[in-house]
Amino acid sequence: MQLLEERIKKDGQVLGEDVLKVDNFLNHQVDPDLMAAMGEEFYRLFKDANITKILTVESSGIAPAVLAGLSFHVPVVFARKHKSLTLQDNMYSATVYSYTKKVNNHISISKKFIDENDRVLVIDDFLANGQAVEGLLEIIEQANAQLEGVGIVIEKTFQKGRELLDARGIHVESLARIAAFENGEVVFVEDK
Amino acid sequence: MQLLEERIKKDGQVLGEDVLKVDNFLNHQVDPDLMAAMGEEFYRLFKDANITKILTVESSGIAPAVLAGLSFHVPVVFARKHKSLTLQDNMYSATVYSYTKKVNNHISISKKFIDENDRVLVIDDFLANGQAVEGLLEIIEQANAQLEGVGIVIEKTFQKGRELLDARGIHVESLARIAAFENGEVVFVEDK
Repeated sequence: MQLLEERIKKDGQVLGEDVLKVDNFLNHQVDPDLMAAMGEEFYRLFKDANITKILTVESSGIAPAVLAGLSFHVPVVFARKHKSLTLQDNMYSATVYSYTKKVNNHISISKKFIDENDRVLVIDDFLANGQAVEGLLEIIEQANAQLEGVGIVIEKTFQKGRELLDARGIHVESLARIAAFENGEVVFVEDK
Repeated sequence: MQLLEERIKKDGQVLGEDVLKVDNFLNHQVDPDLMAAMGEEFYRLFKDANITKILTVESSGIAPAVLAGLSFHVPVVFARKHKSLTLQDNMYSATVYSYTKKVNNHISISKKFIDENDRVLVIDDFLANGQAVEGLLEIIEQANAQLEGVGIVIEKTFQKGRELLDARGIHVESLARIAAFENGEVVFVEDK
């Protein structure tokens, strides 16, 4: 998605080997008009899948997921993160390892909000090692819901998340695909 | 706002003396179309204030704030919550006491995203004791920005938050104002 790639080139900040900071339009300060354009793009990519529900994880997933929900006119559910694994009867839960923070987080979704009639689109801000998305997929399986696809804002193709999802035959669409960071600059897949 | 009050009557769940659970359209599952209608209503209420930035707190504030941002076409910044008060040079921080969880949380916003040229609208999902909003106001003061108003989705008028803000002469608009919970039912101010 050109608008997004231009914004990453303009405002993204490459830190070290593999970190892209996009806190001025995506995950601390948010540009609502860009989120709306991204939501329309997700709709274009998945409009034939009869999506009934969008799932994401707090906090950075919420803005892109809710604006996608506005294009699909379906409810958006954001999984809550918590430190301890407190299994509750009324919640589906999964454990998510954070490579950045080197800790296990736990995510959960109320059983009220996902069931076997749902056709689910997962939306997240980043796809790197794929741990957050895998956690959501686990919850979708627990609920016997149908996964229709995964929509990602920014994918780092050189980390293993995309490969894991492809190996499972999942329909993944990323609005910006980063091939590498070279000399502090972002190189997109199509620039290669 | 009638649409919101009807939704609260239909889907809100009164728990005990003073808790209203609205997790099926506001703070776990989110209804994007309702958020968009609320965003337009906030715009109608504050459109003459020349707002340049919207501030909220993760996670429940993000959906209503971003959809308000879409109506105003201004950036939205969400404060990050953390357990420990780690003062950093590049962040404004404030301490927020949670009456629900009986703990101090700390919130912070990067100095990059708010400055003395900003005219700020604060948006939050609930106004009860006003602690989260007070924390944001503290950050706005630290940044020497101008507070133009506070927009609340659901106000519990019988708790002290509104009074605290009124005493400071702040322009507060709440889309739904709850006067009381009676026999497990919500009573709005205008029903009184």
